[in-house]
Amino acid sequence: MTVTGIIAEFNPFHNGHKYLLETVEGLKIIAMSGNFMQRGEPALIDKWIRSEMALKNGADIVVELPFFVSVQSADYFAQGAIDILCQLGIQQLAFGTEDVIDYQKLIKVYEKKSEQMTAYLSTLEDTLSYPQKTQKMWEIFAGVKFSGQTPNHILGLSYAKASAGKHIQLCPIKRQGAAYHSKDKNHLLASASAIRQHLNDWDFISHSVPNAGLLINNPHMSWDHYFSFLKYQILNHSDLTSIFQVNDELASRIKKAIKVSQNIDHLVDTVATKRYTKARVRRILIYILVNAKEPTLPKGIHILGFTSKGQAHLKKLKKSRPLITRIGAETWDEMTQKADSIYQLGHQDIPEQSFGRIPIIIKNERLN
Amino acid sequence: MTVTGIIAEFNPFHNGHKYLLETVEGLKIIAMSGNFMQRGEPALIDKWIRSEMALKNGADIVVELPFFVSVQSADYFAQGAIDILCQLGIQQLAFGTEDVIDYQKLIKVYEKKSEQMTAYLSTLEDTLSYPQKTQKMWEIFAGVKFSGQTPNHILGLSYAKASAGKHIQLCPIKRQGAAYHSKDKNHLLASASAIRQHLNDWDFISHSVPNAGLLINNPHMSWDHYFSFLKYQILNHSDLTSIFQVNDELASRIKKAIKVSQNIDHLVDTVATKRYTKARVRRILIYILVNAKEPTLPKGIHILGFTSKGQAHLKKLKKSRPLITRIGAETWDEMTQKADSIYQLGHQDIPEQSFGRIPIIIKNERLN
Repeated sequence: MTVTGIIAEFNPFHNGHKYLLETVEGLKIIAMSGNFMQRGEPALIDKWIRSEMALKNGADIVVELPFFVSVQSADYFAQGAIDILCQLGIQQLAFGTEDVIDYQKLIKVYEKKSEQMTAYLSTLEDTLSYPQKTQKMWEIFAGVKFSGQTPNHILGLSYAKASAGKHIQLCPIKRQGAAYHSKDKNHLLASASAIRQHLNDWDFISHSVPNAGLLINNPHMSWDHYFSFLKYQILNHSDLTSIFQVNDELASRIKKAIKVSQNIDHLVDTVATKRYTKARVRRILIYILVNAKEPTLPKGIHILGFTSKGQAHLKKLKKSRPLITRIGAETWDEMTQKADSIYQLGHQDIPEQSFGRIPIIIKNERLN
Repeated sequence: MTVTGIIAEFNPFHNGHKYLLETVEGLKIIAMSGNFMQRGEPALIDKWIRSEMALKNGADIVVELPFFVSVQSADYFAQGAIDILCQLGIQQLAFGTEDVIDYQKLIKVYEKKSEQMTAYLSTLEDTLSYPQKTQKMWEIFAGVKFSGQTPNHILGLSYAKASAGKHIQLCPIKRQGAAYHSKDKNHLLASASAIRQHLNDWDFISHSVPNAGLLINNPHMSWDHYFSFLKYQILNHSDLTSIFQVNDELASRIKKAIKVSQNIDHLVDTVATKRYTKARVRRILIYILVNAKEPTLPKGIHILGFTSKGQAHLKKLKKSRPLITRIGAETWDEMTQKADSIYQLGHQDIPEQSFGRIPIIIKNERLN
């Protein structure tokens, strides 16, 4: 049976994700972000609920990306997630993308020329953002064409880089339905953005999200729930430059901006520049919110849930892989667990996220 | 004209304070705590409002105690306040007390025997709290008798120690009205505690507090407004032992207690021991709230307000004393200003506490 890895945020899980899972055959392992997203924001609903939705709709195993994988720029995000999935024995990586191109060719280009490509990046002007630089790199070395805002496509390129030397196949799947950032709700497969915008429209939600009750009946979190903590932290912290990716310039810009900012968008707009993109500033504000210092990654792999079919696969792995199914006296990843305790402060109805939690188990009616 | 210093919190200002000010003749200079109190809690109303109430009711000058004087145990509180008042040229220090005893004699005892007395303190068991130790010290060396809960009396003893070698007279004034901690509202001179308990009873407040509108029409702050910030800080901070007075034992007790505490009283009860009194734990929680590291004191003296009579005195001092009447590009005391910015986060109606604020000026109808 083919074992396929999928890297996801499911923020929230919706019919487009369900479609992707149905398209893929065999055993499907999801490496999913925890409670903070790659674009620098808290998850709309907590990781346990999102895992449950995925497991009820085609996923077989959901493992958690540690904080310092999930809240990272595309390359580190891809690298960290693929490293975990490879430990879990995947043969291929499936992902949705706007442009289905020959990613195997890109892997080969990168396997051959990674040093030159990295060297090329460092020759580019620092007025360009990192995503702009990598686009130029792929244009020059592999003739990839870019058109407008295509974030999944950019992630696909990061997957290609991270897959070099890993012996896994990349399986791009043409994205169906509304575009990534689309707010369009008149579409059969609505985007996560549109869903986050229309949480009060039950008719729309129930047509766009499977097991929509799980989405509707749990607290919906956003930066608004954490902005006062962020402000407190920025005013109070004795040395913001001790936080990951905060240099003197950013520390000073952020300290100044917080005094005049009424909300997160205002703060991000005030701090962002051409060089420091909004997504990067948002990530940095998450680092500040959870007081994240130098990145370290855990050795263990935290299992959020599995189906009966997934369980059979995990049984084969558990002797040789550091699988963690319960966080107790022994920690999994202190940084992720601390971030979770901050996430929990945002709403009194968010349950404990770490200690004593056991995986979501979904019994398949029959094993395929 | 006699210049008298008075050390106060005015939390809030009430008729008992007005009575004390009326009892004293000449020019009255108040050294008042800012927005955090000696017992480890935020001020009920902000320092500017409290200054205004005092200046309208007998005070001539109000200067601010820096954070690391006002939020300190009795000895440091007294020492810091008296140092400031002496710079402002006081000849005597007036204070309310439950027991009027011969404080001049105590000053003389301490001037003669301070080394022996300090040495004696260090021989006492560490199971005793610091206030208990100093009581024993005064019993042994000066025959002072103690009876029950008499916090102003204990402060009086700290004033005596801090006055040694200063050439100022101590003028104890017998406390009138309800006892310090009394919740009794059926008394002509209600205590600050009773007033804090009955803020919604306009009839009571208007009979107990002069210019009661200033008290009623401004935000009333308590630990409740800051508990979520405190919890966030405790969960998030990378090293609580970097905070003033937090040792490994306390850091560990506090980290553990915050997980089960629903409010500040619960947290204090859980952390306090015989050795770490509740007042000390509350102060330490304030240090944590405002991320206070090693104490430093500012050289400047921050003027919160004055009357015409007070202004005449300040004019004589301003060439030789570092008086600060406006905090702008030049800071007064970073620690106090940071604490003020945290205080302000507790309620949207609290105005800016530092930058650009100028002293409250009350015109006396005639100069005495």
